[in-house]
Amino acid sequence: MSAVPMHLNSAFDTGPWSRNHLARVEQALSQWVGVDAPAGLGDAMRYAVLDGGKRLRPLLVLAAHEAARSAAENADAAAQRAMDDAALRAACAVELIHAYSLVHDDMPCMDNDVLRRGKPTVHVQFGEAAALLAGDALQAFAFELLTPGDSDIPAAAQAALCRLLARAAGSAGMAGGQAIDLASVGVALTEDQLRRMHLLKTGALLQGSVLMGAVCGQASPTAYQALSDYGAAMGLAFQVVDDILDVVADSATLGKTAGKDAAADKPTYVSLLGLQQAQAYAQDLLTQAHAALARSGLPDARPLAALADMVVQRSY
Amino acid sequence: MSAVPMHLNSAFDTGPWSRNHLARVEQALSQWVGVDAPAGLGDAMRYAVLDGGKRLRPLLVLAAHEAARSAAENADAAAQRAMDDAALRAACAVELIHAYSLVHDDMPCMDNDVLRRGKPTVHVQFGEAAALLAGDALQAFAFELLTPGDSDIPAAAQAALCRLLARAAGSAGMAGGQAIDLASVGVALTEDQLRRMHLLKTGALLQGSVLMGAVCGQASPTAYQALSDYGAAMGLAFQVVDDILDVVADSATLGKTAGKDAAADKPTYVSLLGLQQAQAYAQDLLTQAHAALARSGLPDARPLAALADMVVQRSY
Repeated sequence: MSAVPMHLNSAFDTGPWSRNHLARVEQALSQWVGVDAPAGLGDAMRYAVLDGGKRLRPLLVLAAHEAARSAAENADAAAQRAMDDAALRAACAVELIHAYSLVHDDMPCMDNDVLRRGKPTVHVQFGEAAALLAGDALQAFAFELLTPGDSDIPAAAQAALCRLLARAAGSAGMAGGQAIDLASVGVALTEDQLRRMHLLKTGALLQGSVLMGAVCGQASPTAYQALSDYGAAMGLAFQVVDDILDVVADSATLGKTAGKDAAADKPTYVSLLGLQQAQAYAQDLLTQAHAALARSGLPDARPLAALADMVVQRSY
Repeated sequence: MSAVPMHLNSAFDTGPWSRNHLARVEQALSQWVGVDAPAGLGDAMRYAVLDGGKRLRPLLVLAAHEAARSAAENADAAAQRAMDDAALRAACAVELIHAYSLVHDDMPCMDNDVLRRGKPTVHVQFGEAAALLAGDALQAFAFELLTPGDSDIPAAAQAALCRLLARAAGSAGMAGGQAIDLASVGVALTEDQLRRMHLLKTGALLQGSVLMGAVCGQASPTAYQALSDYGAAMGLAFQVVDDILDVVADSATLGKTAGKDAAADKPTYVSLLGLQQAQAYAQDLLTQAHAALARSGLPDARPLAALADMVVQRSY
């Protein structure tokens, strides 16, 4: 262990790390998603999930897993392989939840979006009924992935991962935040109300991704709490930057319709704080995320630090 | 243990058993569903779940739990209380999955139904976007209920229950069957194809309910297999009877729109076999269900036997 925590070491090159882990996630998703579904449903599920997206949530799971694991000593090799498997499954599971939420969000009764990641949305490509079912099936499959009957992943880890994911996805998490969002169109929100909406809508699943990785890495209580704080700050930063990009980027760069929040009269951090203050707030949250990693006591949190940087510095 | 298996003893009065267990399920659902959801979302979730439905799936969980438990000897009282809690949670979880599937099924892009259990459907009452989100949140909450962090339910049972429910609800179960159903309108199916659709669409969750109860009762491998066979036969019988009722009952009795399968040109057991043959098939499946209970070796499977009878003899 180095005296200077490695996440403060700017020599870490996130490129190879990300490429390596993205390749593992893509391969696993392609191997698992929709393969035992009836043909039409499987096609829609795979279309919704494969070949697209930044895969931020899976990378957060894998980075948190590695960070937590970096504190472990003398781990049994077989047990570690089982937890590597758990982390890859968790990485895919959070992406399935994210993907299903986009499919349902894009439907005519919600945001009525026709473009996603530069491609026709699922209901445009397959029809509304198929999109509805594909989203439902993706959510169920996330929990199926977390509970393999024929693996060495301890039951306690399987149950803990399901618990975290269900909570992050449900009415006290993502779905709850979407419901608040839905009820907020044209309504003046305070900054506190806006923060609560975003903590649920996008923050819960981003933070949940970090915590699922922490479970797979068997983080100590201290490290777990610090990773939780990191996840909360990074998750909120993600949404603040999303609001900024909705104003400053164009649709081609975003791969989705730009300016739609303003057009829909939705409250955003930019509408509430102004552009400059929103940018300063994102930087402040990034500082908080790094501070949480510093107090985690984990020897190597560099991928997590790099992902927080990427969240705030991204252009799409 | 009696020499004659108790499920063959016609003296069992299912009334008090059902009333007692229904009351427990209703109370638990009312206590748990939607309470930590944002107001609008929680209202839609509760509307979708409370005060309605036969609760067949929860009763199957509880009956299978008691049947499996009836073979156990000298169980530790605290361990048994934990598994009683698990069974009640599983009973509620399967009902949440069933309820969410009805909410999404009724939406305009699917069956476009305005009446369910004699009340306006969720999207009529709350709007389509809220119905979509409420269904999504109910599915997530089912898995949250199965994985309480502060209980004595063994992690192995929590994980096994999630595994069974995810499989029964997803693309290899209920959602997969719905997708086949969707693709089958106006298409001539063989009896084998129709059976496969129904085994997934309704059979998987009914059988899954039985198996979740079996897990809570720690059934032996022999008993588990027999209960699985019971669940398969009873689940298919349920759908055959559904098809019969769609023809012979009226909307007021059903609490939903009658005759809609024929109107939608959907293949059914009645359209395939004729009414009389379909009725004979339902009786045959009931006999198979009873035979499975007989070979389960379980001392008291009377509630399961009574539920199979109810499935075939019901008028709505």
